[in-house]
Amino acid sequence: MNPPNSMRGHQALPDDPVLVRLWRGEFVESQHRGSWCVVDSGGEVSGEGGSIDHPFFARSSIKSLQALPLLEEGAVRDLGVDDEELCLALASHNAEGCHTSKVSALLNRLGLSVKDLQCGAHEPGDIGVRRALMSAGEEPTALHNNCSGKHAGFLALSKHLGEPPSAYLDPDGAVQTLVRRAISEMCGLDAETLTRGTDGCSAPTYRLPLRSMGMAFARVVDPSGLSPERRAACEQMTAAVAANPILIAGSQGRICTELSRVTSGRLFPKIGAEGVYAVGDRGSGRALSVKIDDGGKRALHALVVELLSRFEMIDDSEARALESWAHRDLKNHAGLTVGRTEVVT
Amino acid sequence: MNPPNSMRGHQALPDDPVLVRLWRGEFVESQHRGSWCVVDSGGEVSGEGGSIDHPFFARSSIKSLQALPLLEEGAVRDLGVDDEELCLALASHNAEGCHTSKVSALLNRLGLSVKDLQCGAHEPGDIGVRRALMSAGEEPTALHNNCSGKHAGFLALSKHLGEPPSAYLDPDGAVQTLVRRAISEMCGLDAETLTRGTDGCSAPTYRLPLRSMGMAFARVVDPSGLSPERRAACEQMTAAVAANPILIAGSQGRICTELSRVTSGRLFPKIGAEGVYAVGDRGSGRALSVKIDDGGKRALHALVVELLSRFEMIDDSEARALESWAHRDLKNHAGLTVGRTEVVT
Repeated sequence: MNPPNSMRGHQALPDDPVLVRLWRGEFVESQHRGSWCVVDSGGEVSGEGGSIDHPFFARSSIKSLQALPLLEEGAVRDLGVDDEELCLALASHNAEGCHTSKVSALLNRLGLSVKDLQCGAHEPGDIGVRRALMSAGEEPTALHNNCSGKHAGFLALSKHLGEPPSAYLDPDGAVQTLVRRAISEMCGLDAETLTRGTDGCSAPTYRLPLRSMGMAFARVVDPSGLSPERRAACEQMTAAVAANPILIAGSQGRICTELSRVTSGRLFPKIGAEGVYAVGDRGSGRALSVKIDDGGKRALHALVVELLSRFEMIDDSEARALESWAHRDLKNHAGLTVGRTEVVT
Repeated sequence: MNPPNSMRGHQALPDDPVLVRLWRGEFVESQHRGSWCVVDSGGEVSGEGGSIDHPFFARSSIKSLQALPLLEEGAVRDLGVDDEELCLALASHNAEGCHTSKVSALLNRLGLSVKDLQCGAHEPGDIGVRRALMSAGEEPTALHNNCSGKHAGFLALSKHLGEPPSAYLDPDGAVQTLVRRAISEMCGLDAETLTRGTDGCSAPTYRLPLRSMGMAFARVVDPSGLSPERRAACEQMTAAVAANPILIAGSQGRICTELSRVTSGRLFPKIGAEGVYAVGDRGSGRALSVKIDDGGKRALHALVVELLSRFEMIDDSEARALESWAHRDLKNHAGLTVGRTEVVT
């Protein structure tokens, strides 16, 4: 777990620039550093800030890449995985009824149950669901884990491949080998050289440079250069999310759902833990990828909305509809405006 | 609210060093920058990192300084404010019954009520209280605001001075003028040059360099050089918190309460919003002050425990008792150890 001291300097994050400042009154109170990249499916970079070639853990932002083998190996077709269940395989969901019921139904159809999910449990993202659990005196289960749909998808692929369900997270097992290969191909990287960690949900997670992750997202929304099977898989994923924006995240307080909804599915967005974001634009065929060095979410929201607007991946009316995510005015507990958020990159 | 562009560069935060790294497996995933200072009551610095002379908003970390006039003007004595109520004036509390009932009782004694608190409402810090409110279908009130005790203290001073209660947050009113003077005196700064913002609870908050804020905390725990009145006020505050560590924060998950409890009140600690911390050591007469530039709390916990240990403000057995705050091992939702926190300053 702990690398030798000699390796530490080499592996430290680069000196990224300040991207977002928080003002209180007339003064900067806090600030967030990081990096970002706007890139197309051929790897052409049209905008960047910070270290776009330093690899970092992509976390949940690349669930769509992790789901490619589920489609390409024929598991979706053969097991009758519908578009809503597919969305949940790509989602970091809020554990609302529409999320957990579909994950549960898919597991049932596979002859499996919540016990087969190895993602662990955490409090539901949705406050209503949290309250209902509290009122009922119930604890959250692995179904409430925001990654439960991804894990159900892995289990579907595992079953399709004839593997034991218990092995679906093994980094060198059949499922994760296919997943790693799909990620590396989409990112234009060598699968054997990808560096790995264990995600919050226990799945293998890989380090990718923003340039590569952005290019992979651009390829998802502009799959014209991909193989017919992969192209079909990408088109099915983007159409499924466009038709079901709530399933990718949740009905309240989730920027992924809002970006998809406000753009009628033209944007294909995904958040990852520790300040990671990726969003492809089916209109321009470009993608934006972001990493906030401190892992904070508030900087991410403001930055993503600002950069999407600046690079014309959203128009003025869409930008207005997304205005609240820019956190332009900071209000305190008494409702007074006490500061503002400023994107400075 | 928005300063002209020409002022922005001047007011930006300095380029502070990385203080805390978050590792996932063998790699750094996120990092936090900031500054810190160990200083005594004479201003002698025995350790530092980053920009200790750049002023930043002290927020709730200096509630003890804000409470000095309450003691020095005779309001505590004349209004019969007891040591528990005094603790709450210094607290960022969790809204447990022991907190809200005492704030409410003080307001009642003043002939005032929750309606006179101008701090606004937010969800209780304590999860049990949050659950109870949810189950009862009730909304939090201003009593649940973590600053309600400070506001009750301001109101007590206001009443003692014969001011209208509604004016207690006026930056140029009698209460806040005394507060500003006490802060500036303890920090060795000119009250007229202090730059101001509005806090989350609507009280005036001032920008202080870490060196000055640390020195002020050192003076609270080593008041030998202060006037007899101020010395008595400081001794009463530190003794009150030492006797009632739960009242300064809460019974669960609060580092301030733990630092006080584990050291039997030798440490006099206080957290502030946006990554601010100050803690005085009655043993050595020194204080540690910290600002995390991104405002995050996780870096703060690890850093404070490490620096207190390094500067021998806690001994080995106290450090062991505080071990969980160092977040040394990061566990995921399934309970696997997936990373670690490293203090690098």
